[in-house]
Amino acid sequence: MAFLNEHYLKLKAGYLFPEIGRRVAAFNLANPEAAKRLIRCGIGDVTEPLPSSVREAMHKAVDEMGDRSTFKGYGPEQGYDWLRKAIAENDYRAHGLDIADDEIFVSDGSKCDCANILDILGGLNVIAVTDPVYPVYVDTNVMAGHTGPSDDEGRYAGLIYLEGNEANSFVPPPPKDEHVDIIYLCSPNNPTGAAMSKAQIEAWVAYALDHGSIILFDAAYEAYITDKTIPHSIYEIEGARECAIEFRSFSKNGGFTGTRCALTVVPKTLMAKDGSGNLNAMHPLWSRRMTTKFNGVSYIVQRGAEALYSSEGKKQVKELISHYLGNAKILREASEKVGWKTWGGENAPYIWVKCPGSMTSWQMFDKMLNEANVVITPGAGFGAMGEGYFRISAFNSRANVEEVAKRISTLTF
Amino acid sequence: MAFLNEHYLKLKAGYLFPEIGRRVAAFNLANPEAAKRLIRCGIGDVTEPLPSSVREAMHKAVDEMGDRSTFKGYGPEQGYDWLRKAIAENDYRAHGLDIADDEIFVSDGSKCDCANILDILGGLNVIAVTDPVYPVYVDTNVMAGHTGPSDDEGRYAGLIYLEGNEANSFVPPPPKDEHVDIIYLCSPNNPTGAAMSKAQIEAWVAYALDHGSIILFDAAYEAYITDKTIPHSIYEIEGARECAIEFRSFSKNGGFTGTRCALTVVPKTLMAKDGSGNLNAMHPLWSRRMTTKFNGVSYIVQRGAEALYSSEGKKQVKELISHYLGNAKILREASEKVGWKTWGGENAPYIWVKCPGSMTSWQMFDKMLNEANVVITPGAGFGAMGEGYFRISAFNSRANVEEVAKRISTLTF
Repeated sequence: MAFLNEHYLKLKAGYLFPEIGRRVAAFNLANPEAAKRLIRCGIGDVTEPLPSSVREAMHKAVDEMGDRSTFKGYGPEQGYDWLRKAIAENDYRAHGLDIADDEIFVSDGSKCDCANILDILGGLNVIAVTDPVYPVYVDTNVMAGHTGPSDDEGRYAGLIYLEGNEANSFVPPPPKDEHVDIIYLCSPNNPTGAAMSKAQIEAWVAYALDHGSIILFDAAYEAYITDKTIPHSIYEIEGARECAIEFRSFSKNGGFTGTRCALTVVPKTLMAKDGSGNLNAMHPLWSRRMTTKFNGVSYIVQRGAEALYSSEGKKQVKELISHYLGNAKILREASEKVGWKTWGGENAPYIWVKCPGSMTSWQMFDKMLNEANVVITPGAGFGAMGEGYFRISAFNSRANVEEVAKRISTLTF
Repeated sequence: MAFLNEHYLKLKAGYLFPEIGRRVAAFNLANPEAAKRLIRCGIGDVTEPLPSSVREAMHKAVDEMGDRSTFKGYGPEQGYDWLRKAIAENDYRAHGLDIADDEIFVSDGSKCDCANILDILGGLNVIAVTDPVYPVYVDTNVMAGHTGPSDDEGRYAGLIYLEGNEANSFVPPPPKDEHVDIIYLCSPNNPTGAAMSKAQIEAWVAYALDHGSIILFDAAYEAYITDKTIPHSIYEIEGARECAIEFRSFSKNGGFTGTRCALTVVPKTLMAKDGSGNLNAMHPLWSRRMTTKFNGVSYIVQRGAEALYSSEGKKQVKELISHYLGNAKILREASEKVGWKTWGGENAPYIWVKCPGSMTSWQMFDKMLNEANVVITPGAGFGAMGEGYFRISAFNSRANVEEVAKRISTLTF
């Protein structure tokens, strides 16, 4: 009889967001009146319209599909040349970073890429994640059989958890005496909103070069960086081309969460070893993975993404970011005003908040849901070190954010 | 130092279509004049415009993205309810097949699904493919470490190859004395164009139920079935809900190869065993896989796919299929007229042809390229049993197909 992948059976019951969804649905059912005033600051999903430059480009692309002389069938699996070039030029070479067009791989999402990258990595790697952590990094390693079972805290045997805490402002440094092969870093961070300084990323690159490790650098929120000293790309650090893969997305800058487009950078100079200890370039492996298991992003969507690099598109992205960062400021200040300790919200659309008193993060979730009718994300959903904290997302309308700020001010404990 | 997935190093150099691309590019460079009259009947890519019903729906969806009250962020990873329902109702329940809306998983492509399905299957399965075979089935098993190295014929150790040949009209029956856990079946078949009869599929379902095997049934070309006795879905066979996963696509009916949308059916009654021999349903595993590693298909594209189920959309799909099947008839008749032995082309957009004389399939590829300036697909690219055959694709304009027919008639051997 056919075998299933039994590593899936190790996964803890709920991926975070479905569990939130279940609790919110139950609340709405039980409280139809309060449900009407519910404001969602939970899932990190954009709320504002897709920029007009993107919509115009997509309308044009849809029309092209209606004429056989401009119709597009299968495109290159790695993305159209014009989009790879626009990305490499604008996001990298314009900033003095040495990234070639064909080191850019266009995909349908950063979540997919962060998950699929494991396809080209071996089973013997020692894998490290930060804690708090974006759950996809952990769950996909469980699925791939890179861990043992989980313990009571939800930590999986075999994974190295690098602890983020108040002392290190939720930016864990490289381990001192421990070897890891693969490291997931997310900056600006989901969920803590912490953006790594140049020195902090440099320390990681130095560690990776020293250990032959690969850094999986998730830069999905780079557009939110306002501090000029903070790197937008890991390739701003010398040596990163030899040790890092970078993930970026159009979800949080162009508002593409429902439109779907992202990219991964795999430098041709990145190597890893096979079982015999021979070095091989990773670029051909990812290229083979994408051409074999993927068929490219919709032509229409790629044209939309390209429009984000037009002068109009760049202006519109700036306006979107400025809107959400304005929201973040309001939420952070409202939280601080009631005495909550906060992190993030300055170079990221997330505010990370310490739960008042000795509340657990799910208690805080339930209190915010029941008393303020606001959905936040419990920190415990991001790992053991997230317990006692929660995340407020700034993705919302200004009116909603101002209302949330008001409701926070009236909560009693 | 980090390990790569060394199973990738077992892969034979070229995935078929990139190799064809290289040869065509070299030909074009060397023969700029002949390049102008090149006609591509190689890759199975549609050529005709996207139906107007689809384009209208996508224009509307793009406009919705421009208004925050109708803007769509993250959708359900498994697909929007309205699309899952349209698929389940029209493709299954309207034909008396018991498939629930939530057994439909919308994705960005059948190639992706056929590849990704291995994520939820264990590493100990005995896996069978037919030969000739769609290369993705094989390559993704190599990548997943389910095989040993390949031999001189390109066959990988550990995979069971079920031989298609003239005696069985390229529809291999279930093995008599051999146990396999996972079986890939593609009907109508890519590359041979053979469509399995009801009795042939019944034999496979009986085998699978007897052995506890899972059939991965690729029905990407079901819309091309003209023979009323041939099943469009494996679920037309009693018991298939207990042993089969079905893949379908909008690529070849709606012309979505560049627009990207497909679906997979995982019945809730399909079980597999874990290492302890306990049975588990596969549906929750695929659901977990999709929610964790995927973020859904673009809202705009899903609205386009939905439009294929409108009365206008259905009419337009029929017209597209009728156009390509008309092409197939012309190509098949032209091939037979010059004495070539053919299969397929009646319930499929592919004609499978025996190479004249003792030519190998790459010799035939080169001859067709150089002398007729027509790109075909060499059978050897589909496995050892494809040697000595080639595939002509009917995806083209009528004028091109008529020109190909003419050129075939003037070839000399």
